[in-house]
Amino acid sequence: MTTRNDCLTRDAQDPLAPLRDQFDLPTGVIYLDGNSLGARPKASLARAQHVIAHEWGKDLIRSWNAAGWFDMPKRLGNRLAPLIGAADGEVVVTDSTSLNLFKALAAAIHLQAGHPERAARRVIVTERSNFPTDIYMAQGLSSWLDRGYSVRLVDSVDEIATAVDADTAVLMLTHVNYRTGHQHDMAALSALARQRGALALWDLAHSAGAVPVDLHGAGADFAVGCTYKYLNGGPGAPAFIWVPKRHQAGFTQPLSGWWGHAAPFAMAPDFAPTEGIGRALCGTQPIASLAMVECGLEIFEQTTMAAVRAKSLALTDLFIELVEARCGGHPLGLATPREHARRGSQVSFTHPHGYAVMAALIARGVIGDYREPGIMRFGFTPLYTSHADVWDAVEILKQILDDQAYDTAAERGAVT
Amino acid sequence: MTTRNDCLTRDAQDPLAPLRDQFDLPTGVIYLDGNSLGARPKASLARAQHVIAHEWGKDLIRSWNAAGWFDMPKRLGNRLAPLIGAADGEVVVTDSTSLNLFKALAAAIHLQAGHPERAARRVIVTERSNFPTDIYMAQGLSSWLDRGYSVRLVDSVDEIATAVDADTAVLMLTHVNYRTGHQHDMAALSALARQRGALALWDLAHSAGAVPVDLHGAGADFAVGCTYKYLNGGPGAPAFIWVPKRHQAGFTQPLSGWWGHAAPFAMAPDFAPTEGIGRALCGTQPIASLAMVECGLEIFEQTTMAAVRAKSLALTDLFIELVEARCGGHPLGLATPREHARRGSQVSFTHPHGYAVMAALIARGVIGDYREPGIMRFGFTPLYTSHADVWDAVEILKQILDDQAYDTAAERGAVT
Repeated sequence: MTTRNDCLTRDAQDPLAPLRDQFDLPTGVIYLDGNSLGARPKASLARAQHVIAHEWGKDLIRSWNAAGWFDMPKRLGNRLAPLIGAADGEVVVTDSTSLNLFKALAAAIHLQAGHPERAARRVIVTERSNFPTDIYMAQGLSSWLDRGYSVRLVDSVDEIATAVDADTAVLMLTHVNYRTGHQHDMAALSALARQRGALALWDLAHSAGAVPVDLHGAGADFAVGCTYKYLNGGPGAPAFIWVPKRHQAGFTQPLSGWWGHAAPFAMAPDFAPTEGIGRALCGTQPIASLAMVECGLEIFEQTTMAAVRAKSLALTDLFIELVEARCGGHPLGLATPREHARRGSQVSFTHPHGYAVMAALIARGVIGDYREPGIMRFGFTPLYTSHADVWDAVEILKQILDDQAYDTAAERGAVT
Repeated sequence: MTTRNDCLTRDAQDPLAPLRDQFDLPTGVIYLDGNSLGARPKASLARAQHVIAHEWGKDLIRSWNAAGWFDMPKRLGNRLAPLIGAADGEVVVTDSTSLNLFKALAAAIHLQAGHPERAARRVIVTERSNFPTDIYMAQGLSSWLDRGYSVRLVDSVDEIATAVDADTAVLMLTHVNYRTGHQHDMAALSALARQRGALALWDLAHSAGAVPVDLHGAGADFAVGCTYKYLNGGPGAPAFIWVPKRHQAGFTQPLSGWWGHAAPFAMAPDFAPTEGIGRALCGTQPIASLAMVECGLEIFEQTTMAAVRAKSLALTDLFIELVEARCGGHPLGLATPREHARRGSQVSFTHPHGYAVMAALIARGVIGDYREPGIMRFGFTPLYTSHADVWDAVEILKQILDDQAYDTAAERGAVT
């Protein structure tokens, strides 16, 4: 059985270990919630200070051009693109994931409505277990269209194959499930969609920076995702949207603000979308929050997603092994696939008192989070999590469980 | 004629003059572009540093609750509300102005569609001279509805009275025009809309913090606005949306993300809007940018909009007087109303070489901006602009015009 010394040895041999120094991690904390809010790159503070004190304070309005504020969504998109198998000019960092999903879904519906053989398709297929805002945005869009669009919820991966039928306009999936860490086979499901005449829209919220993603290789049609989880962009940092070049000319969506206009400063009274990925933009972006996204991306540029993935699997394998070996007598249920190809970068365990156990863990400095029903989530972020962190976290979990040191009467609230 | 000494005397007697110390203004610059990007409150740097270094860096995920990140859109909305005549629980600071306009317009259309006598109304009336993104968003929304909605553009204020007819669902206007600084009579036009069975939606981008606004008193139905202009919230800071309590129960819009859900952490697969103004929220907000909005609002709480307005009119009157007296021989045309009730907090002058003259002004440290066609804009922000600033700016303008010290061959680009 693996010992703590084994973990220290692995850390000593870990090629990613030096990157941990680029993050500001609080002492006394083992942070296993980078799947919800990534830790802070040290560089982000100085970057924000420069944007606020110098670019805003001293250069004022001139910074829109001189400091590249206007171009930041595209510039950051180009830096993010390699992490998800996208090309230059196919990604912008802007708005929230919910809003970008709305744009991509609207564009997919628009493309299908203009297709001679697919114009009658009216169904958006997704999973009931998808992150709720994705479902809500699809419901919002479809209920506002007066053409009978609806959202079809499926209850299992197997059901997707039958649910995507001749009525399906879009297959909209989150690549890695936020609760279980289950990873879909993006290539197979995109191929299924294509074979059935549907378009495949992927939410990469728990994938970008967490697992290797090859959007072009997988034959995806559209994608959106988050920068404040594994990409460490900062709380609520703007999200991203990917539109491959083959779909850009046909990319039309109703959130047609001036940042997506061909000539925003011509101040013409009719909307005319710009060429390229810029048409996925809408309004003015929050520059201080946006600028910090770059600090997270700069750290990824010092390694590869293959290296990140290798360590991610080592950490999640280790966590599963240690929990099962050391907490075996307790009613824990592994909710995350053991199969590597089906696993993201988190491990979820159920427990009858999952909420209370997680509260006790947090009180002792092991920060994961809780999601209904009964799921304790532990996110593993290879840029700043060590093997020894994993060992120590399991030791504290074992103590809490062995001692029943959790308050089952604790008020249930949002453990985010 | 007013002398520079007169200006200094007025500054010495100005009750708002001490507030200038709360802004970080660069030396050698007379900043007359606060109508585009407000100057930086000194407090904003420390606020952002605390959010980034402590709340994000040290407290990490716990700050969503412990530091009040989740509640920030509502908390800031309540602080902003008094500036626009709104009540507690009627405003949130969130997303961009374009997106908030889309939500409000959609909600207004939805309300009208459910009204027994107004369901057939299909026209959104606005001005051709409105800020383009407002028109674009209305075009985007109406073109995506399959019920024959359209945008009707009017070319003059007088035309509004005839354009709002039995087909009009919504009268959508920007209160103060971004180019000319013309201020609409919000009460009269809201009453006109109401009498004709239309709803009145106001964009306060150039009003909030610039002129007194009394949304309830004026009988407005919905409003949106910007925090990064006169409210000094920082570049691209999130915008606001106002929904009066009387419209909240019927407020329905398609950007139905999880932040607008009644129980966002129940993770239910069906959207159910929360009670109150929260239903105007959509997705996760950019916290660092959002937090700085509060620093701008804190300065407004040290004075009154009546005092701000009195100084604004003094400054704009002075600028008009001095330009006309000292630059009288040059082909300048006043584009801003002389009548106080029709004037916002900016003054615009046309000039045949407006772009080149503005570029020369900026090169000499007088920062205004330029908007097609031929309009030089000068924003006057009573919290940090002095009477002496106005005198000095006009002196530099006079020198440039007298010496023809501007390059008419200068490439025309975005002078933002």
